[in-house]
Amino acid sequence: MRRSERVTALMRRGQVELVRAFEQLDGEAAFRGSSWQRPGGGGGEARILEGGGVFERAGVNFSAVHGAEVPPSLAGQHPGSAGRPFFATGLSLVLHPQNPYVPAFHANFRYFEIGGEGLAPLWWFGGGADLTPCYPFEEDARHFHRALEALCKHHPQADYRRLKRACDDYFTIRHRGEMRGIGGIFFDELSAADGGNFEEDLAFVARGIAALLPSYLPLVRRRKDLPYGARERHWQQWRRGRYVEFNLVYDRGTLFGLQTGGNIEAILMSLPPQAGWAFDYRPAAGSAEARALAFFQPRDWLDGAPARENDA
Amino acid sequence: MRRSERVTALMRRGQVELVRAFEQLDGEAAFRGSSWQRPGGGGGEARILEGGGVFERAGVNFSAVHGAEVPPSLAGQHPGSAGRPFFATGLSLVLHPQNPYVPAFHANFRYFEIGGEGLAPLWWFGGGADLTPCYPFEEDARHFHRALEALCKHHPQADYRRLKRACDDYFTIRHRGEMRGIGGIFFDELSAADGGNFEEDLAFVARGIAALLPSYLPLVRRRKDLPYGARERHWQQWRRGRYVEFNLVYDRGTLFGLQTGGNIEAILMSLPPQAGWAFDYRPAAGSAEARALAFFQPRDWLDGAPARENDA
Repeated sequence: MRRSERVTALMRRGQVELVRAFEQLDGEAAFRGSSWQRPGGGGGEARILEGGGVFERAGVNFSAVHGAEVPPSLAGQHPGSAGRPFFATGLSLVLHPQNPYVPAFHANFRYFEIGGEGLAPLWWFGGGADLTPCYPFEEDARHFHRALEALCKHHPQADYRRLKRACDDYFTIRHRGEMRGIGGIFFDELSAADGGNFEEDLAFVARGIAALLPSYLPLVRRRKDLPYGARERHWQQWRRGRYVEFNLVYDRGTLFGLQTGGNIEAILMSLPPQAGWAFDYRPAAGSAEARALAFFQPRDWLDGAPARENDA
Repeated sequence: MRRSERVTALMRRGQVELVRAFEQLDGEAAFRGSSWQRPGGGGGEARILEGGGVFERAGVNFSAVHGAEVPPSLAGQHPGSAGRPFFATGLSLVLHPQNPYVPAFHANFRYFEIGGEGLAPLWWFGGGADLTPCYPFEEDARHFHRALEALCKHHPQADYRRLKRACDDYFTIRHRGEMRGIGGIFFDELSAADGGNFEEDLAFVARGIAALLPSYLPLVRRRKDLPYGARERHWQQWRRGRYVEFNLVYDRGTLFGLQTGGNIEAILMSLPPQAGWAFDYRPAAGSAEARALAFFQPRDWLDGAPARENDA
């Protein structure tokens, strides 16, 4: 089987498994599907759940596209690739829970290949996972980061500290001087150029996909039935406003999608069901909301505590 | 009095008058003020009303800033201006009404001057006004556009058709292939280069500010007490989602502000109090919401009907 087929199969299987798990946990609503074709070749499937018992809006998207010529924006980043055929596949998920105590979750894994007859194919993986809580539960943040550290420990090409720093940096809302959430890991180009090899990098991505549920589901189960009221929902709306600011102003995938067309609804699936803005809103000193603000700055979530792989 | 002082006085007076009129109409909430200083010189005052009887979120902002050196982004657009002192003043307003039948309203007027000893100063005006309804009231759209046409008629430098086309083009959400609302007029650089002169252009801007209330207030009075329910509020939320998409992805003033810093809360005052997103939402055929979609494409709102200046 070709590399592209192997990665595609992994991404597609990931979508099926994630959808099944989130649906089971939600208990009230089911994902519906929306397939799309790319005129130049390939397509994808968006799976969406809205108005669920646990998830207010959730999307798990899969795509696999190819074409005869690398798009200009990609070619610019990879000298010598212009005019060569390309292939790209990806899996992405965004979960916006109903209960403000349950953190929002985002992850995506992607694979690119630039080929051409008689040329050694160029390939790379990218991906990451990050958490966006509204409320400051230290144990949730620790659990999430420990799960990611445990994932990285098995793979010398994935240094948790480095990937965590890249994530902190990426998910910064620069005009606010704050992060969208509490980060996670982020890697942009895992490739032969990094001294990696395809088999090892594929194994890391496969384990990364498998790590998503144990990193996140325990937090959902722990918080989903906590009582909340209008105050917590308002705070969640304002934090979701920040989420929107990040995604529409900075997120590379979103901006790339908006510029190149594609399936707009699938691209903007990442946006929350609602968001809000209020002028210069500042939570009362000492409140849980004020304490949450300290979470949206880069921070060591391991604190020397040992990673426990089976924390979930 | 210097040019810069005359325009500043006009903008400041405009803020006072607009705030007074909107407050009076709202009847329930008052504008509060928030002054800010620019480290390089000058500053501004944001006036904000939130949670009013008519306006859910409204901002009327004034600023007048100056500095020893034109910011790089401006200098790039004006050859020979790098390193020269500059002055900029502006008045902007954004009104997000509570009642979904009342259209949102945006307008801004701005003046730039690039000086330097022994050099003829470069100056230009920019501005415009546009309307963003959720529901398709033909008479409201006509009233608004007629008021703007009447304004332009007095000023040969302001051709309504040309300014209307520029507005349709500017307020397009490109990734959706639709406009944010129903447009209005938009002009970017009214200057000596256009064959205009300062006195005439200042007179046009002064009349433009004076035209804002009669173009908009009649629509508010006509619609503010119409009964509405959850359905109309949902539709309003989704349309506000589009408003957010436009402002964060395309609006030049917003992006310029986010990139250069400045008062973030004043810059993002334009965002609605809430916005929402739902996957691939399409209103039922024949509904008022579906008919509204036809409004969000460029369209002739005059249809040969005569402009009536005193329509208000």
